[in-house]
Amino acid sequence: MRPLIPIALALLALPGLAAQDAAHTVMPVPRSITVASGGLRLDSTFTVAIRGHRDARLERAVNRAITRLEARTAQPMSHVIGSDNATLVLDVRSAGHAVPDLDEDESYRLGVTPARATIEAATVVGAMRGLETLLQLQAADKSGNYLQAATIADAPRFRWRGVLIDASRHFMPVDVIKRTLDGMSVVKLNVLHWHLSEDQGFRVESTAFPKLHELGSDGSYYTQQQIRDVVAYAADRGIRVVPEFDMPGHTTAWFVGHPELASAPGPYSIERRWGVFRPTMDPTRETTYAFLERFIAEMVTLFPDRSWHIGGDEVEPTQWKTSPTIQQWMTQNNVADVHALQTHFNRRLFAILERHGKQPVGWDEILQADLPAGAVIQSWRGMNGLTEAVKQGRHALLSAPWYLDHIKTSREMYLADVLPPGLTPAQQALVLGGEACMWAEYVTAETVESRLWPRLAAVAERFWSPAEVRDVPDMYRRLVVVSRRIEEVGPRHESHTPAMVRRIAGGQDAERLEQFLAYARPRGFGGRGTTQLSPLTRLADAAWPDPWTDWRMRDRAERAVAGDTAAARLLREDFTRMAGFRQILLEMEPRVPLARDGILLATASGRLAGVGTEALQYRIRGTLPTAAWRLRADSVIAATDGKTFGLLRPVGVEAVKVLLAR
Amino acid sequence: MRPLIPIALALLALPGLAAQDAAHTVMPVPRSITVASGGLRLDSTFTVAIRGHRDARLERAVNRAITRLEARTAQPMSHVIGSDNATLVLDVRSAGHAVPDLDEDESYRLGVTPARATIEAATVVGAMRGLETLLQLQAADKSGNYLQAATIADAPRFRWRGVLIDASRHFMPVDVIKRTLDGMSVVKLNVLHWHLSEDQGFRVESTAFPKLHELGSDGSYYTQQQIRDVVAYAADRGIRVVPEFDMPGHTTAWFVGHPELASAPGPYSIERRWGVFRPTMDPTRETTYAFLERFIAEMVTLFPDRSWHIGGDEVEPTQWKTSPTIQQWMTQNNVADVHALQTHFNRRLFAILERHGKQPVGWDEILQADLPAGAVIQSWRGMNGLTEAVKQGRHALLSAPWYLDHIKTSREMYLADVLPPGLTPAQQALVLGGEACMWAEYVTAETVESRLWPRLAAVAERFWSPAEVRDVPDMYRRLVVVSRRIEEVGPRHESHTPAMVRRIAGGQDAERLEQFLAYARPRGFGGRGTTQLSPLTRLADAAWPDPWTDWRMRDRAERAVAGDTAAARLLREDFTRMAGFRQILLEMEPRVPLARDGILLATASGRLAGVGTEALQYRIRGTLPTAAWRLRADSVIAATDGKTFGLLRPVGVEAVKVLLAR
Repeated sequence: MRPLIPIALALLALPGLAAQDAAHTVMPVPRSITVASGGLRLDSTFTVAIRGHRDARLERAVNRAITRLEARTAQPMSHVIGSDNATLVLDVRSAGHAVPDLDEDESYRLGVTPARATIEAATVVGAMRGLETLLQLQAADKSGNYLQAATIADAPRFRWRGVLIDASRHFMPVDVIKRTLDGMSVVKLNVLHWHLSEDQGFRVESTAFPKLHELGSDGSYYTQQQIRDVVAYAADRGIRVVPEFDMPGHTTAWFVGHPELASAPGPYSIERRWGVFRPTMDPTRETTYAFLERFIAEMVTLFPDRSWHIGGDEVEPTQWKTSPTIQQWMTQNNVADVHALQTHFNRRLFAILERHGKQPVGWDEILQADLPAGAVIQSWRGMNGLTEAVKQGRHALLSAPWYLDHIKTSREMYLADVLPPGLTPAQQALVLGGEACMWAEYVTAETVESRLWPRLAAVAERFWSPAEVRDVPDMYRRLVVVSRRIEEVGPRHESHTPAMVRRIAGGQDAERLEQFLAYARPRGFGGRGTTQLSPLTRLADAAWPDPWTDWRMRDRAERAVAGDTAAARLLREDFTRMAGFRQILLEMEPRVPLARDGILLATASGRLAGVGTEALQYRIRGTLPTAAWRLRADSVIAATDGKTFGLLRPVGVEAVKVLLAR
Repeated sequence: MRPLIPIALALLALPGLAAQDAAHTVMPVPRSITVASGGLRLDSTFTVAIRGHRDARLERAVNRAITRLEARTAQPMSHVIGSDNATLVLDVRSAGHAVPDLDEDESYRLGVTPARATIEAATVVGAMRGLETLLQLQAADKSGNYLQAATIADAPRFRWRGVLIDASRHFMPVDVIKRTLDGMSVVKLNVLHWHLSEDQGFRVESTAFPKLHELGSDGSYYTQQQIRDVVAYAADRGIRVVPEFDMPGHTTAWFVGHPELASAPGPYSIERRWGVFRPTMDPTRETTYAFLERFIAEMVTLFPDRSWHIGGDEVEPTQWKTSPTIQQWMTQNNVADVHALQTHFNRRLFAILERHGKQPVGWDEILQADLPAGAVIQSWRGMNGLTEAVKQGRHALLSAPWYLDHIKTSREMYLADVLPPGLTPAQQALVLGGEACMWAEYVTAETVESRLWPRLAAVAERFWSPAEVRDVPDMYRRLVVVSRRIEEVGPRHESHTPAMVRRIAGGQDAERLEQFLAYARPRGFGGRGTTQLSPLTRLADAAWPDPWTDWRMRDRAERAVAGDTAAARLLREDFTRMAGFRQILLEMEPRVPLARDGILLATASGRLAGVGTEALQYRIRGTLPTAAWRLRADSVIAATDGKTFGLLRPVGVEAVKVLLAR
């Protein structure tokens, strides 16, 4: 631990204001961007023109952009889209694919000068990506609003930039899905992977097999009209919708209405617990494939995308191993083990999909010997699935680092990369991209948006921007702004914590709980003992997954160590607040029973804050701590770092570690 | 102005804590309520049983109530509804009306003891009202959550307790309507008056005349399936849905597709301005009635309620007066003037409605000589329409005091009564109740909930509770709690200001703007010069219509004058904050262009705060101000009281007036 450097030097170390002003807040960072001083004034004289290709989808996108500019500036603007000169001119070469496609050209060029903004794109989707960047160039000065002058040439690093929404374990109503699509479009994500069936729920209306949704959903399912509406809404934003009907495992909810599909006799009921369960489709019966043929023939009319997710994860083999007829069939057909049996199932399933022009995608478990070619492997249990797949010449997607339900920080997810080291260029080219996964054991329609956003924006940058874009403080600086811009289009993540806290407590108690949650994080996946029927309304559910405080404290600690006394003061205030929460919660608990949820963490945070305050004093005084103090500090770190207190985790550990570093 | 009374006395004057603890937060106040100490513990052992009548609607209501209790307590509870003893026993005599009805018996009895809660009701709707009261008895102490022990016998003062939602001037999507219904059910409102057609938009899908919605709505209309869904959703909460198709005026949007209905040749286009416009249906042509017959025959299949709102307001007579054929027809048929012509139209319209079993409701303009019997008169231009109607033996509704778009305070709307003085008991009995009106010139789907709630809860109490319930401080004390409970079920009013402010500014600027808006109110109806196409995203749109600060300052002033030094200190802090806003906004404006919206008001508020601070000092010192100071103070009051500054109005004027009172 070094003492602080002198104040004069510290001031020099502050970033110049001019430099900050010239910074942009675009997320994801474009492939190439040059920001100049000045910009294009933004007022009611703003007009738009489309040159070249023009269609209704492009016009709707332009109209949405104008409406957002109007809302921000509170000034009416013309919605008449001309074909001549205007403030903003779009030059689009073609419609692009009729249905949003993996091979869509999403590149665009954007120029903003004091006289005009121009967007050039090969496709309508490219123009939409450019419009989102344009909206992120908005800034204001004493003369009013303007678009920052900039020259941008942009294209995505990966073609497949998705998010999985699990609408099965907890149902996610259409408005949640649409708001998610709106948020996705802001950060240029282009695939909604919609997880539609599970042990705990079958969520799509089927006219061919109505017992699927009638008996498998508790009445919470998407009508076919709603599905079409969502698919069209997504297409309007250049977003593909890839449905997942997970099979042959994770299928209990199918069997409530159709026990004949299962590998063991019924009856079945909707599973309420979380985990991996035995009910599994019977791959040895022709009736299973006849059913799937008819089912898929119906579903393909709803989902036009070329990709079709078959699931394939976590097949629990007990039913297969204990069924005499299945065992007999395996012997007769020389199917060596349950993995080979799943591959047999997949081969039959792929054949059905192929007849319907669909390309299968599956979780990495399907990558077994003899898996037919053509399937995209989605790697979720680590990097191995991806590495193995591309070595076999298969396409692959990576999800393992981006399980949003694990409640990692934006920092952690941002620093993970899609490409593991050691791949050849040819192998790299087989990696289509990545998907963040929002599994829904521990989120509901009420909480899901707070778990998606804003962290998903950091992941979106990883998928879109060049690999070299990895500056964490700059990412957080922009994320604070982009989070608000995402809220503008629909998602409610910024309102989430205050709203849930208001339910938990009233008046000043609510304010104090909100302050406490700025210094707390929810635990990751699991550890709750809840079922599908449990309320998810505890302090942990109200908490921010990655409160700004955490990285700000770390940033302040780094600045403090570098001699920034203002940062040191702010950090001391953080520690003072953290030290006070235990008493606040104890005092609150008789009025607010759920305050109890925070006391364990508040106690631990108080100890951490004590060490942090002292470490900061050592730094400021320029003295070195005693060995005894060091020992104690290390033990406090060991007792908090990576630890969980009830359903909450500490904030500020990294900051204290920075202060303690020798 | 008297000096403060001594401190010892002041402490005695404070309400005892014990008394506060025993207070309830039920809104609307029941007809009879006795709260006892102690209560029924609320934990995962909570169970529900239904005795007597039982049906699916009741079970759904019970399930919703259990889910809300689970969410508040974060404890799972059994959703199995027994028929035997349980923690909560409902005893219901009958289903009540198949379609929610004006004559529904909504009374209930509710008892909570430490052993059990019981709800007795004649109908399912009565039981639902009781469940809402039960949910408002929830409290917490150091042992956890409980229901306050209470004995309640309750029934509404008025049968018709409604709110008009204008979905025509700005479209209100289904989720906004459903959240409004959820909020209504919390405070026992029972009529959604749905204003579905206007000069600016025709909002219902018509298969008989598809050009109505196709050409008259800009694509923003309710499908018939959505209408049915909303009507069922409302019925599930014991809420009637009364549609309004306003005619013969306010009909421009009909004429875009059907100019033949108008009294002057077309073409017509959707009106974008606000006001009263000339396009009016032609009451002299049989084709008009043939159209309406077929139109209503279709619409009655969507809206099962017995009441049918025909509008009838603000008929601009120019088209009638300038049409030679209409003038000729009037002469031939001895129709003396345009009022008589409207009555002719109404007579024909009523006959159509009667054939479909519908009873007409109309705005007070329809109350002309020779109006046929049977119509309910909705009085909006004052009390006269109501008084005149009941004197004629007609049923009446009052709306004039409760125009939510006039942005009065909850206090003002709460103190207005449904019954004017001087009516006989028989005349009083003809007054069905009241309706608050949410006209949509100056609200959008984004802002409407903040204009509905929480003020509508105060109005709901006026409609439900005994006339004697008029204690304003007690109303506000409960409104703060009920506002949060309304938010729980859907409406987003509590999140509104922070969310809009985040769009306007980031970081500390947003915090400061939010603080400023605690001391500002939006102006009332009009004065903006906007059209249907203008953004409504200025500071005034973000502002709370009746920020808690306003009544709290008044309350603090009254307590301060009565010798409460703590209240005096809080009030001084209010004034200090108010005095600082001008400088804050001026400093912010170069970054936040919309901050400019607040500078005029901040300047005036600063002056008011100066006078308030000085007045408070005179009170505390026990000295009397000079005549010159008084003159200056009076001039500052005159310059702020009831005044508008840009789009904002001051907060705290009443508090300063209390301090200045002699």
